Amino acid sequence: MVISIKQKTPFKLQPLQQAVPVTFTYNVHFTSGLFELNNPLLAQAIGEKGSKQMVAVVDAGLLQHWDGLLEQLAAYVQKYQDLLTLKVEPLVVPGGEVAKNDLALVDSIHKVINAVGLCRHSYVLAIGGGAVLDLAGYAAATAHRGIRLIRVPTTVLAQNDSGVGVKNGINAFGKKNFLGTFAPPYAVLNDFDFLTTLEERDWRAGTAEAVKVALIKDPDFFNFIATNAKAIANRSLDAMQQLIYRCAQLHMEHIAHNGDPFEMGSSRPLDFGHWAAHKLEQLTDYSLRHGEAVAIGIALDTTYSYLAGLLAHSEWQQVIETLKGLGFLLYVPELAEQLEQPDHPRSIFRGLAEFREHLGGELMITLESNPMGKLWLFILIW
Amino acid sequence: MVISIKQKTPFKLQPLQQAVPVTFTYNVHFTSGLFELNNPLLAQAIGEKGSKQMVAVVDAGLLQHWDGLLEQLAAYVQKYQDLLTLKVEPLVVPGGEVAKNDLALVDSIHKVINAVGLCRHSYVLAIGGGAVLDLAGYAAATAHRGIRLIRVPTTVLAQNDSGVGVKNGINAFGKKNFLGTFAPPYAVLNDFDFLTTLEERDWRAGTAEAVKVALIKDPDFFNFIATNAKAIANRSLDAMQQLIYRCAQLHMEHIAHNGDPFEMGSSRPLDFGHWAAHKLEQLTDYSLRHGEAVAIGIALDTTYSYLAGLLAHSEWQQVIETLKGLGFLLYVPELAEQLEQPDHPRSIFRGLAEFREHLGGELMITLESNPMGKLWLFILIW
Repeated sequence: MVISIKQKTPFKLQPLQQAVPVTFTYNVHFTSGLFELNNPLLAQAIGEKGSKQMVAVVDAGLLQHWDGLLEQLAAYVQKYQDLLTLKVEPLVVPGGEVAKNDLALVDSIHKVINAVGLCRHSYVLAIGGGAVLDLAGYAAATAHRGIRLIRVPTTVLAQNDSGVGVKNGINAFGKKNFLGTFAPPYAVLNDFDFLTTLEERDWRAGTAEAVKVALIKDPDFFNFIATNAKAIANRSLDAMQQLIYRCAQLHMEHIAHNGDPFEMGSSRPLDFGHWAAHKLEQLTDYSLRHGEAVAIGIALDTTYSYLAGLLAHSEWQQVIETLKGLGFLLYVPELAEQLEQPDHPRSIFRGLAEFREHLGGELMITLESNPMGKLWLFILIW
Repeated sequence: MVISIKQKTPFKLQPLQQAVPVTFTYNVHFTSGLFELNNPLLAQAIGEKGSKQMVAVVDAGLLQHWDGLLEQLAAYVQKYQDLLTLKVEPLVVPGGEVAKNDLALVDSIHKVINAVGLCRHSYVLAIGGGAVLDLAGYAAATAHRGIRLIRVPTTVLAQNDSGVGVKNGINAFGKKNFLGTFAPPYAVLNDFDFLTTLEERDWRAGTAEAVKVALIKDPDFFNFIATNAKAIANRSLDAMQQLIYRCAQLHMEHIAHNGDPFEMGSSRPLDFGHWAAHKLEQLTDYSLRHGEAVAIGIALDTTYSYLAGLLAHSEWQQVIETLKGLGFLLYVPELAEQLEQPDHPRSIFRGLAEFREHLGGELMITLESNPMGKLWLFILIW
C-alpha cells in the first residue's frame, strides 16, 4: 500500500469534517430612467467584456402603466449590444401573487432559458413587483444551479425589502413560498420612476416592512416614518425615497451581519408580525397584499406586546397611529374567524403552526418591549 | 425630516454594497451496518432533542440486493423514536439515471414533504446511488428553501464523489443537471457494507473519479491506485475503502479551499475529463454509467495531453494502464461519430459547447502536463 491510513478497520475511520465558506456579494443601485439610452447603469452592472445572453421576465401589471417599456428595453439592449444580447422577446408574466401560484410559469422560464442556451454566466433580468421577482428568481436559481439574476424591483415593497434580500420562492400546496431557495441576486437596480405610477395600495403596502424594520432596528428611522407618515401617504416621492433607502440598508445589514443569512437556525426578528400576515394573505385569497397584511400583523403583535405589559399605552398608540397615518386599514373580518378553534384552517391562530412548519425548529415570535429601543422578546411556542 | 441622507437627488444615492458570508458545515462519516439497532450513527447525526420528522427516499436498485432494508429502517426509527419520526413509508424511486430524468419524481417527493408537514429543521434521508441522492437533494433543497438532507450513498461513486459534495440536480430538456442547486448536505453517512452487493460495473465505475482527483491533486494517491488497480478490480474491500476515504477527502478539501465552492467563476480542475464524459453519457442514452464515461474522458484528455507534447509517453501509458487495470473499457463506438462535423448533435466535440453552456463563461479544459505533479494547463476554448 502506498498511502497509509492509520486505522485499517473502516468503521473507525475518522469523520471528515467539512466547512464550506461562501461569500455572496451584490450591489443595490438607486437610479431613475433605468432604461433610458443615456443611463449606463444596467450595462455597467453587466460590465464584462463579450456580449452576454440575457432573458427578461417582465411583470404584466407594470406594462399597464409603462406600455413602451419593452420597446425601450429593446432599444437599450441594441445600444449596448457589445455587452448585452436579448435573443428572445421578454417573457411577460402576471403580476402580483398570481405569479407565484402557477408552477407552469417556472417551467415557461426554464423553457426560454433552455431555448436560448443561457449559461451560468448569463443573466435573467427580472422587472416587476416582489412576486414576479420571486418567481423569476426561483427559475433562475434552479437552472444550471444558478443563473445570474438582475432584479429591477418596481414596487415599494420590492425596492426596500424582498428585492434586496437573498430569497426567492413560489407557492405550492396552498402554502406560501413552499418552493424556493436562498439565492442572492447578482445586482439590484432600484428605479424610483416606477413608483410614480403605482396604485395607491401598492405605494402604501411597501411601507409596512419599513415600519417593521424601524421598530426592530432603528428608533430614529421609526421617528422619521412617524413624523412623515402623512407626507408619505400623500405620495411625497422625496420622503418615500428616503424610506426605501434606509429600509433597504437596514434589511441588508441584518442579512449580512445576523450570523444566519440563510435562516438555518431559529432566531428571526425580521419576521415580526409575519405569522399573522402570511395567514391573512391566505385567508383573504391574497386579496390582501403582503404589505397590507404585514401592517395588520405588526398592529396585532404590538397590541399583544401592550396587553402583555411590555409596552406602554403611549408607545402602543404611536405604532398604531403611524400605521393608520400611512393609510393602512388595521382590521379585516378574517381576523375574527374561528377564534375559539385555533387549529381550524380558517383561524388566524392556525398561522402559528403553519409558520412554524415553514421556518422549522422552534417558533419564536418577536414582540416589542419598547418600540424606541432595540429590545424584543422571543416567546417559545413549541 | 428626522434622518438625513447626504444627496437629496435619488439617482445620486450611493449604491448599497452587500457581502453575505455563509459557512456550510457537515460531516462525512464512515461506518458499516448503518441501520443495525446498535449503530447509533444516524441517531447521533440528528442529535437534537425532540423527535424530528423525517421522510426517506430509497433507491429501488438498492432494494434488489437489500430486500430487508425498509423493515430494518423501520425498526431503527422505532428504537430511536425519541429522536426520529418516520410518519410515512419510504418513497422508493428508480435507481440510476432514470431517477434524474423524470421531473414528476421531484413533485412526488414534494408531495410527501407537504403531506407530512416537514419543516426546514426536518430531515430528508436519501439512501442510494448518486442519481437518487441528486434527485432527493434537489427536492429537499427547494422545499421550504432547504430541508436538511442526510445522504446515505450506497455506491462507490456516491461515497467518494457526488455524495460528499455540495450539488444536486436532475436532467431536463435533454441536458444533464439542467435543474439543480448548490446545497450542502446536513450529514453524509457512508456505509461500506453497501459496496459488497454492488454489481461489478458500479463497483468499478466509482473509481474513475478517484483516478481523476489523484491525477490533479495527489501523486501519492495516484501511485496507490496504480499499484492496487488489480486488487481493486478483484474487489478488495480494504483497498476500496482507502480509495474512497482519500478520494472523498481530496474532493471535500477542494470544495472547501478552492475559493469558489459554488462555481461562480470559471476555473474547475475537477472537471478534468468531464466534457467528453457528459456527452458520452447522453450519446449512449445513459447506458454508459457516469464513472465509465469519466474513465473514457480521462483517457481522452490524457491522450490529448500526450499528443500536445505535455506528457511523456510513459506517463500517458501509466494513466491508460491504470484505467485498464481497474477494468475500464476505454472505447465506445460513439466516440467516432460525426468527427468531421464538430457541431453535429451526435459528435463528441459538441460536448464542448454543451459543457460550456452548463458551466457558463469561458470554457477551460484541464489537460495534464505531468500526472505525477500538480500541474495542469487551461486551454481557453471560448
